[in-house]
Amino acid sequence: MTERILPAAGYRRIATEEAFITPELHQMYRDQIASGGIDDPGFISLMGYYLTSTSERATTVSERLQDLGARRLADMDAAGIDMQILSLTSPGVQVLKADIAVAMVRSANDQLAEAITRNPARFAGLVAIAPQNPAEAAKEIARGATRLGLKGVIINSHTQGEYLDNPKFWPIFEAAEASGLPVYLHPNTPPPKMIAPFLESGLDGAIYGFAVETGLHTLRLITQGVFDRFPKLTLVLGHLGEALPFWLSRLDYMHRGTVNSKRYDFMKPLQKKVSDYLRENVYYTTAGMGWEPAITFTQSVIGMHRVMYAMDYPYQYVPEEVSAQDALPISDADKKKFFQTTAEQVFRL
Amino acid sequence: MTERILPAAGYRRIATEEAFITPELHQMYRDQIASGGIDDPGFISLMGYYLTSTSERATTVSERLQDLGARRLADMDAAGIDMQILSLTSPGVQVLKADIAVAMVRSANDQLAEAITRNPARFAGLVAIAPQNPAEAAKEIARGATRLGLKGVIINSHTQGEYLDNPKFWPIFEAAEASGLPVYLHPNTPPPKMIAPFLESGLDGAIYGFAVETGLHTLRLITQGVFDRFPKLTLVLGHLGEALPFWLSRLDYMHRGTVNSKRYDFMKPLQKKVSDYLRENVYYTTAGMGWEPAITFTQSVIGMHRVMYAMDYPYQYVPEEVSAQDALPISDADKKKFFQTTAEQVFRL
Repeated sequence: MTERILPAAGYRRIATEEAFITPELHQMYRDQIASGGIDDPGFISLMGYYLTSTSERATTVSERLQDLGARRLADMDAAGIDMQILSLTSPGVQVLKADIAVAMVRSANDQLAEAITRNPARFAGLVAIAPQNPAEAAKEIARGATRLGLKGVIINSHTQGEYLDNPKFWPIFEAAEASGLPVYLHPNTPPPKMIAPFLESGLDGAIYGFAVETGLHTLRLITQGVFDRFPKLTLVLGHLGEALPFWLSRLDYMHRGTVNSKRYDFMKPLQKKVSDYLRENVYYTTAGMGWEPAITFTQSVIGMHRVMYAMDYPYQYVPEEVSAQDALPISDADKKKFFQTTAEQVFRL
Repeated sequence: MTERILPAAGYRRIATEEAFITPELHQMYRDQIASGGIDDPGFISLMGYYLTSTSERATTVSERLQDLGARRLADMDAAGIDMQILSLTSPGVQVLKADIAVAMVRSANDQLAEAITRNPARFAGLVAIAPQNPAEAAKEIARGATRLGLKGVIINSHTQGEYLDNPKFWPIFEAAEASGLPVYLHPNTPPPKMIAPFLESGLDGAIYGFAVETGLHTLRLITQGVFDRFPKLTLVLGHLGEALPFWLSRLDYMHRGTVNSKRYDFMKPLQKKVSDYLRENVYYTTAGMGWEPAITFTQSVIGMHRVMYAMDYPYQYVPEEVSAQDALPISDADKKKFFQTTAEQVFRL
């Protein structure tokens, strides 16, 4: 028995950054944390907490992550969420050895497709990949798009300290562009060569480290010319773009200055301004940022049609934030874009 | 002969984050870079560029940094700046050995006081310190306040990878609070244990690394209880608070969650919300962020009376940004606060 706490709206509410985990990956994480098989202090701290802590937050999140049926649907009903776009939780398989990772994402994507088949009106999903093997990742994107009916690609920022501006990863972008799937660049804890001052102060995760790791990754993609090479590539960022909209003007000024100074030989002129890519190749979701001032700021400097709703279930299951976003000071037409039609267009639902 | 390009305004324009360098520190940086005496890749890359590049940007910045007289005054006149609050340029002496650093800031503060004496209507200044020696730093703050007439303390984020939330540095905050001087927390390039993914992509400096290093430092101070221990301490942040105003809601949510989860034993409950400290203990300047949307956003979520003008001379000497800020969509009374009276109050001018 669940009850919708919200009145029927003039739109469907599609939540676009919603996480799950497969039983196999859940077990693999636990085994790796127990055996010390993964040498990534951010992963060990964060997933070690969610999978082994007996705190209420950790056990509730862990249970909800594993459910792709009744419990999740009841939570969605209670919060007024019509559809979740599901993605394998961060860091997915990106911390694993390449061969295991490749096998595990195939299985995860199959299980995701089955869950969607059981509830096609309530779930859609993104293809998980193992960037460790770019050629296999490209194949999995094609398989996800054509055979599994998945609607985008989920990548959890760095892969064992490597970033997607490295051209060895570009078959992934080529496949995403060819399949017409957007790439959702989800946060990860910062890599070992960056995390120390965050981890020693407890700021490595969603409170701050996530944001700067993913903001950095996005800026690396832009400044290394990924969108000049793949102009039709669409990126989706959660958490209102990890604050990059706040920086548009400074990014343009400092990028122009850095290029002109020739301080780095690899920092080459781009076809457009940094802010142009952030306005033309990127969509933004409100995952974890159900706060009117930052939402309306982003809508204002990026564009109303590029900001979409997300909840970040189960990590931030706060039904009150749905009501708060229902009450945004924007027109009914824009609200329908925000909750429904922009997501339908971006993910081709 | 210089000409003011701006009409007389109903306020004095006080620029609050304006850099200079002493001849001794300039020479010391050059010597250290040449000899490899400083093991900080961010410093070597950034100051190596400004002090040795023959590019127009580098030579102009280097020349302007060294001038505390006619050239600087002419630039101020041309941009309509009535007063600069001067600070020894980042990273100051924080990269040097402690004994050299202590001697060098004394000399730098004396030279700064002399420059102010020569032009008391045009210059005020902040005390430079060597956090490497907290006891001496505390003494220098007291000397700066009482004998030199300086108006705040300048600290350039981390000191050789250490952050001021470490209680060994707290004599600095004690002295600042006792002297009634605000602490301007200026950016630095990220420390060796964080900088790798920024530096390899050319994003270590003002384009992004500065912001996250200083944002991280500020959050460390707040979450480790510095403002509970020193409730009258005032912090000043440039670059509109390094985007922290964008994160107010998420910081509160995630900090509460982290404390409740007991994930880190050192992340203890605070007396107030993270956003309370950002609204009650921190002032914000527009250094490098002369962009109306981000300025008005910050004024709106933090408070009109906590946002002040800064130029970031000579790094961002863009007179057009003064005109843009003269045209902010705020009342004349608020504009006078923004350009003049808030700075007069915070720095007790």
